[in-house]
Amino acid sequence: MVLEVASQSRCFGGMQLVYRHTLVKIGTQLQCSIYVPPQGEQGRVPVVWFLSGLICIDENFTMKAGAQRVAAELDLMMIAPDASPQGDGVPDDPEGAYDLGLGTRSYVDAIREPWLRNYRMRSCIEKELPALIASDLPADMSRQSILGHSMGGHGALTIALRNPGRFAAVSALAPISSPMNCPWGEKAFTSYLGPDREAWRSYDSCALMEDGHCLPELLVDYGTADPFLVAQLKPDLLETACFRAPIPLTRRINEGYNHSYFFIASVIEDHLRWHAERLGRQASPHGPIASGHPDRGRLP
Amino acid sequence: MVLEVASQSRCFGGMQLVYRHTLVKIGTQLQCSIYVPPQGEQGRVPVVWFLSGLICIDENFTMKAGAQRVAAELDLMMIAPDASPQGDGVPDDPEGAYDLGLGTRSYVDAIREPWLRNYRMRSCIEKELPALIASDLPADMSRQSILGHSMGGHGALTIALRNPGRFAAVSALAPISSPMNCPWGEKAFTSYLGPDREAWRSYDSCALMEDGHCLPELLVDYGTADPFLVAQLKPDLLETACFRAPIPLTRRINEGYNHSYFFIASVIEDHLRWHAERLGRQASPHGPIASGHPDRGRLP
Repeated sequence: MVLEVASQSRCFGGMQLVYRHTLVKIGTQLQCSIYVPPQGEQGRVPVVWFLSGLICIDENFTMKAGAQRVAAELDLMMIAPDASPQGDGVPDDPEGAYDLGLGTRSYVDAIREPWLRNYRMRSCIEKELPALIASDLPADMSRQSILGHSMGGHGALTIALRNPGRFAAVSALAPISSPMNCPWGEKAFTSYLGPDREAWRSYDSCALMEDGHCLPELLVDYGTADPFLVAQLKPDLLETACFRAPIPLTRRINEGYNHSYFFIASVIEDHLRWHAERLGRQASPHGPIASGHPDRGRLP
Repeated sequence: MVLEVASQSRCFGGMQLVYRHTLVKIGTQLQCSIYVPPQGEQGRVPVVWFLSGLICIDENFTMKAGAQRVAAELDLMMIAPDASPQGDGVPDDPEGAYDLGLGTRSYVDAIREPWLRNYRMRSCIEKELPALIASDLPADMSRQSILGHSMGGHGALTIALRNPGRFAAVSALAPISSPMNCPWGEKAFTSYLGPDREAWRSYDSCALMEDGHCLPELLVDYGTADPFLVAQLKPDLLETACFRAPIPLTRRINEGYNHSYFFIASVIEDHLRWHAERLGRQASPHGPIASGHPDRGRLP
């Protein structure tokens, strides 16, 4: 056991764990919340990664999304990492911006000072953390899927696009379609990656698709009352990129929902059942979630 | 509309609202989170009150318990008040204790200085808030039920015992059985009510039962890993009082669960289905939750 257990709580017959770990080379503290379903006490279970948004920690997901009930039923391990840099000496934005530096999630490996050493969320989630989980937990690493919310949606999409074959299912909740083309993304990429926009392309879902990366299919949900929909999320950019790739896209527009965890809680069950089907577990008793017109899909 | 809407989020087809209101006579600000299920847009729906624990605000419940999914299905309005005193000039414990004064919930009307004017949670929940809800929301006040967690379990039990006939169902999650006989309760009651223990009896579930107050029946859940079980909750005091009253008690002991919202989330569906049955809504598709031996009930 390399990961240190910070807390554990019985939940829906399984166990909700919070782990801490020091990433020595990167010089940061990693926190990761993991839900082990009841079946995980008998053997290895499939793994679903959830990546949080710009300013959300792992516990926003584990405490607010209500995913454990469904994960327990479907025998899914839920991994919610907070790989944002933490620890003594980790640099922060000098102006203390809410959307840059400490407390934010970008899912990139920085290539500029002062971020170079510590801001390496891509490496953390693509390499360091999977190795720790494979060694310490009853995880069947041959069956993984990934989803994320907002900036974590960008994280899930780009990690899946760059690692073909690793994930049996990919989906997103109100994702940022193209960080290269929205204020949050442009600010973060300029700071962490520098002004050369060519260096940004491997961290942009739409650019990765333009450059030939692909996914078997994609499920995405949005809410019409999401205050970030037009300026930051830009669903049409993702739709156009998927159309051209081509990647079959199931896009659901949910009337009246905003960007909060009340939205996530309302759709997470559909996403986990969709993932479970593709991970080879039981079929959904609810039937296909998008019938007829993907764009017209509505919450029940 | 007297209540001021502070925020609203679509959730499981209904609406999660946060209201604020100034209680002029009591001189405090009241915050109350209310979930209106989809059916509430068509007409009046039954009302389920949830009272939070000593240091939990209303949003702990609305964000962490996952109750909205079940409430939407069962057509239940969920009312989670935070009636703990707030506002300018409200006195606090001079030593800043975590378990007394501002930020705590006792569900009593104080009769001593400096608390006398502002610390009136009993009046707030028994009188002021129901009148506001009846006038401002699609609530069927002829069909109400109540439950609570920890100190809020004490609140739910005592409010129901003192108001016979108002609630069609009463239940509790890890409740404090007898504040007169546990450290949290003795500290709060000494401060708010003074040293005369006779004045405490109308705020103690077990004493109210000894004094002839009754309930039709009661459902209570505990976790065996609850760190407060022995010193604060004392389930045996409640069991003895119910046995003598007599009040039919369904007591479930859940192996390995602690005092957190991970425990609440795991059992809330059972409680809401139990309430809905008694509020005259649809029967539970899961059958009775306690089969055979109430004390041996286990989570699925």
